[in-house]
Amino acid sequence: MRERIPVGILGATGVVGQHLVARLAAHPWFEVVWLAASARSEGWRYGELPWRLPAPMPERTAALRVGPLDPATAPDLVFSALDASAADEAEPRFARAGRVVISNARSHRMDPLVPLIVPEVNADHLALLERQRAARGWSGGIVTNPNCAAVLVALVIAALRQFGIEQVAVTTLQALSGAGYPGVAALDALGNVIPFIDGEEDKIERETRKLLGTLDDTGVVDAPFTVSAQSTRVPVEHGHMALISVALADRPALADVRAALDAFGARAAALPGGVAPLVYIDDPHRPQPKLDVARGGGMTVSVGRLRACPLLGYKLVALGHNVVRGAAGAAILNAELVVSVGRVLASA
Amino acid sequence: MRERIPVGILGATGVVGQHLVARLAAHPWFEVVWLAASARSEGWRYGELPWRLPAPMPERTAALRVGPLDPATAPDLVFSALDASAADEAEPRFARAGRVVISNARSHRMDPLVPLIVPEVNADHLALLERQRAARGWSGGIVTNPNCAAVLVALVIAALRQFGIEQVAVTTLQALSGAGYPGVAALDALGNVIPFIDGEEDKIERETRKLLGTLDDTGVVDAPFTVSAQSTRVPVEHGHMALISVALADRPALADVRAALDAFGARAAALPGGVAPLVYIDDPHRPQPKLDVARGGGMTVSVGRLRACPLLGYKLVALGHNVVRGAAGAAILNAELVVSVGRVLASA
Amino acid sequence: MRERIPVGILGATGVVGQHLVARLAAHPWFEVVWLAASARSEGWRYGELPWRLPAPMPERTAALRVGPLDPATAPDLVFSALDASAADEAEPRFARAGRVVISNARSHRMDPLVPLIVPEVNADHLALLERQRAARGWSGGIVTNPNCAAVLVALVIAALRQFGIEQVAVTTLQALSGAGYPGVAALDALGNVIPFIDGEEDKIERETRKLLGTLDDTGVVDAPFTVSAQSTRVPVEHGHMALISVALADRPALADVRAALDAFGARAAALPGGVAPLVYIDDPHRPQPKLDVARGGGMTVSVGRLRACPLLGYKLVALGHNVVRGAAGAAILNAELVVSVGRVLASA
Amino acid sequence: MRERIPVGILGATGVVGQHLVARLAAHPWFEVVWLAASARSEGWRYGELPWRLPAPMPERTAALRVGPLDPATAPDLVFSALDASAADEAEPRFARAGRVVISNARSHRMDPLVPLIVPEVNADHLALLERQRAARGWSGGIVTNPNCAAVLVALVIAALRQFGIEQVAVTTLQALSGAGYPGVAALDALGNVIPFIDGEEDKIERETRKLLGTLDDTGVVDAPFTVSAQSTRVPVEHGHMALISVALADRPALADVRAALDAFGARAAALPGGVAPLVYIDDPHRPQPKLDVARGGGMTVSVGRLRACPLLGYKLVALGHNVVRGAAGAAILNAELVVSVGRVLASA
Repeated sequence: MRERIPVGILGATGVVGQHLVARLAAHPWFEVVWLAASARSEGWRYGELPWRLPAPMPERTAALRVGPLDPATAPDLVFSALDASAADEAEPRFARAGRVVISNARSHRMDPLVPLIVPEVNADHLALLERQRAARGWSGGIVTNPNCAAVLVALVIAALRQFGIEQVAVTTLQALSGAGYPGVAALDALGNVIPFIDGEEDKIERETRKLLGTLDDTGVVDAPFTVSAQSTRVPVEHGHMALISVALADRPALADVRAALDAFGARAAALPGGVAPLVYIDDPHRPQPKLDVARGGGMTVSVGRLRACPLLGYKLVALGHNVVRGAAGAAILNAELVVSVGRVLASA
Repeated sequence: MRERIPVGILGATGVVGQHLVARLAAHPWFEVVWLAASARSEGWRYGELPWRLPAPMPERTAALRVGPLDPATAPDLVFSALDASAADEAEPRFARAGRVVISNARSHRMDPLVPLIVPEVNADHLALLERQRAARGWSGGIVTNPNCAAVLVALVIAALRQFGIEQVAVTTLQALSGAGYPGVAALDALGNVIPFIDGEEDKIERETRKLLGTLDDTGVVDAPFTVSAQSTRVPVEHGHMALISVALADRPALADVRAALDAFGARAAALPGGVAPLVYIDDPHRPQPKLDVARGGGMTVSVGRLRACPLLGYKLVALGHNVVRGAAGAAILNAELVVSVGRVLASA
Repeated sequence: MRERIPVGILGATGVVGQHLVARLAAHPWFEVVWLAASARSEGWRYGELPWRLPAPMPERTAALRVGPLDPATAPDLVFSALDASAADEAEPRFARAGRVVISNARSHRMDPLVPLIVPEVNADHLALLERQRAARGWSGGIVTNPNCAAVLVALVIAALRQFGIEQVAVTTLQALSGAGYPGVAALDALGNVIPFIDGEEDKIERETRKLLGTLDDTGVVDAPFTVSAQSTRVPVEHGHMALISVALADRPALADVRAALDAFGARAAALPGGVAPLVYIDDPHRPQPKLDVARGGGMTVSVGRLRACPLLGYKLVALGHNVVRGAAGAAILNAELVVSVGRVLASA
Repeated sequence: MRERIPVGILGATGVVGQHLVARLAAHPWFEVVWLAASARSEGWRYGELPWRLPAPMPERTAALRVGPLDPATAPDLVFSALDASAADEAEPRFARAGRVVISNARSHRMDPLVPLIVPEVNADHLALLERQRAARGWSGGIVTNPNCAAVLVALVIAALRQFGIEQVAVTTLQALSGAGYPGVAALDALGNVIPFIDGEEDKIERETRKLLGTLDDTGVVDAPFTVSAQSTRVPVEHGHMALISVALADRPALADVRAALDAFGARAAALPGGVAPLVYIDDPHRPQPKLDVARGGGMTVSVGRLRACPLLGYKLVALGHNVVRGAAGAAILNAELVVSVGRVLASA
């Protein structure tokens, strides 16, 4: 695979789009050759647009001109960091035109024919892509990654599914970057907590069950456990924290739960972006956004404080990088998965 | 009651001690005439010691000299804002010497003979004070208020107890002032969340059940429901937030739960510091520490986001001022309760 | 003055407009009877619009309907909290229509015929209002207060002008609320400093010299000293800090400078909103936004750290509430000044 | 230089000590083989002590045992990250015992025989080391780097010294990590500015003049210009900002000043840690701590907003990493300088 696969980015100018550009700059398989965004940014060279990451913009991307959301000139593989309002319409249009869209948008995640994928959790769900193409008559397709908080829950729960998941209660403390840019006003965020993120609790409750679901002839059957989520916005730059309680059918000893977390954590996806999906930290004060958000380049979820829960049996704390594991990095890992099983070539 | 009752403060120099001084300055019943603190502050005039509240120190208190933790010169009624390490020993010593100690310390809260009181929740538990005196042979006594996060849970649960409390799950996002001064290092707090507060989860789980318990011949029988708590420290100055899920035996409609919150909220304790104990806010983005912490002079808990919980049935968000409703204001309300039922006079 | 003077507010929905509403609710002279704002808010009852202050919205104002920027129905006296883009055109139109506009906008501050007033500094400049009316043929007029950072410098410099001001160097650390709402994005503000506020340094340099200037037949002659300003935005909610160095012709002893600050600080304007304009704090760690911003209801500037400057001779630190002394409170004090010298009646 | 030079660290457990350990882990010339600290940490393995950096502790250092401040077993070259209280006595003792101490402490910086060095500014001052040895009869010696804010001023002023420095006014907005750990209490820091850092203004005023001074037969003659400093603490994790005004004898055009900054910035020290000492950013909103602190691995000072100053002629903004360029990285660069000119070998 000496020659890199040309890829495009839909919505290249937002927080997630910028992180996609930054992370793809040195990717061994992919090369960003095409950028598209909403009308406001169209026509500018990417290097002329605002850039909010500390690391400098990759020079080759800076030279690209931002085009319209038109698949005509797009490469076969495109990442989508579009807002849902734009993704609703644009992503199916690209899929119909033969492009494989690796989307971070919420728009089509719960579509029964769209695979919602975390490679370490449910890589097998990618098989839905063929049904999607057949049913819709598309030569391309849409593959999605979950909401930036749902992925934390899904990875932890996947590590424990051998014990029989019965109930999941999760409270999230979510970082500011999850709201995009400009996002939350400083006057609302500084020294404050906002106990509401529109649509977030519903996404966590539904996406977790689809991610942990099983594929049968009819599509994905949601996992049969209940999830209850409460979401808050806290004055943290990057790093969503999830305080998770879980009821397990087998009532394993805490040591066995810990062993399962360790074992799952050791199984990195066999892909360029594959790192330990989770790491357990033996320090009651951890994980913390400030100290742990960048673990594994932002792709490793940090877990700690496993202990007994008087109510559900087990509780623990998980923390992950919302823009990386929860968005840009998640999409790239999904693209690697798609390529590694030959779906893009098939679409050509 | 033209003449005010002389009171003392144990631990007058910490965060809670300073708030006690500030709040008692214009109290209709109490007058601060005596201050005591650890050896480090002993011997100074109060006005010579650091003061960290924005409002100026009350002049009369500034003139008082800080003495040792010695009941000999103390008035009959003393507030204790001591750390547990000092309260362990000092509070029983004052009680033995005939002083009624209104304590905010955790030291004796779970002592079966010490009333743990939130006047709107369990004023009847004050009857324990007589048994305490009898059993210990004290002419004084100890009355305590709960942990600064437990009080939020207790007030909300008390409002709903008519429906039969079965299970309570609570996640707290706690303010920096709850850790005292200097407390948390800025380098640890800024832009960060710390998912651990030593002993806090246990206090919430146990104190809530004692507060909602019933008094019988043997003492307080803990309420029979289960509580599971997860506590975090967030970069907020004042105001603990509690995200509460609750299972109710009667399965009431959400509207009935709301009506119960409103009805309970309307019943202020008939005491000088009595205000609406809770207020429901019809705005999904509320309550927030920044906007709601000072409601009712810090004594009113703000509640919002009542909705169905897929797991326990009901969830909502509560917010209260940890230094006021959770400490200084709580102690003062308890002192008012004690005085109003004649316990101090009885001790004289 | 039993009956209160009806007043209106232009731009009632922004940060400054909301503070005007809150501060005027219990004003002894003024009663808010009329609200106007940009097209986006027009037609709504004020109580239906977002309100971001912790204290509840005054009920009488909540009932008012927000109208267009049309002087036809406006009372004789209107406050303007408009953005400069709207104030440019609207304020002269109201003045022409016979309304006295007490403006916080920057639009007309440097107009040679518009008085730029801080009552404790240059109340005599109000005489410009007659010339303004004569020259423009207006029966109303425009009176302005300075930029929220310039007022800090002007008050300190006014206290020292007896010594002969030669040079002023000032660095400001300005609060987030100075940028309005939504203002600065949380992602830009949290844990950060932005060393640029568009137009701010120029305003401080020019307005200070106009405020300290003298009135002659041609208008205000700017004070003859030089001012150099550097402005930054810091993650503070309310409270601009100004680090000021000043060269004084008379080379007074530090004790004499201090005495001058104390003497000036003691002279409150003889108006309802008149409080000590500045207070010196003998604590090297002060003033601080958190502890000192609300002094004098936000109208008193806190000063500290007076010491020798190796370069200009004297340096000190000043802090004031940017939304109160720097905007809403400043405008109200100006309105009180205008009324107290009969300018409104004259316009009728 | 295949074999690395063994080095020790005095004060290895504080903020600066930890950064020294982290930065030296992969150093091409130095290998940390010896650690010493105050009695509190003595006897522990380094890996058993608290570690507050996000990156994991280097394994080889983790295995070292922390010893007492005793030169007997120390290698020839030791870094000192001691507090001044310990450095006062310990550093001369190590120098007397033949160790070259590369110190970050303030204790001996202004000693006329101790070189205070920023390699890009005054590498020639290192010649003082020979005089120090001769005068004190030491076979080792002490070399110091400046205060974490003074280095910003020194680098900017050094870039402009060709124009004849006459006067310097600087206001600093300093990060929390400059106060060490635990340092500032979160309750004091959050949403606040503290306008005082004990001793800081004096250090900036004096150290800048020594750094820019000239070496003659009597030692370092301070540069003849005046410096006035005002220092504040702001709620930023890392990155001191300096707002600098400067009077230049030659009155160069702004373009010439800019060219001088660019030219100086291009001259990296010819040492392993040598990177561009400063970089000018053409964006009025920069430099910012959040975006620019890590430039050049923390060793590059970011400069921006060069413009005319009505008072002194020129003003600009500089930002640098206080723990790297202002402490750990500065010491390492000094050690590289010492080694590169053969001072350590000479001491052996």
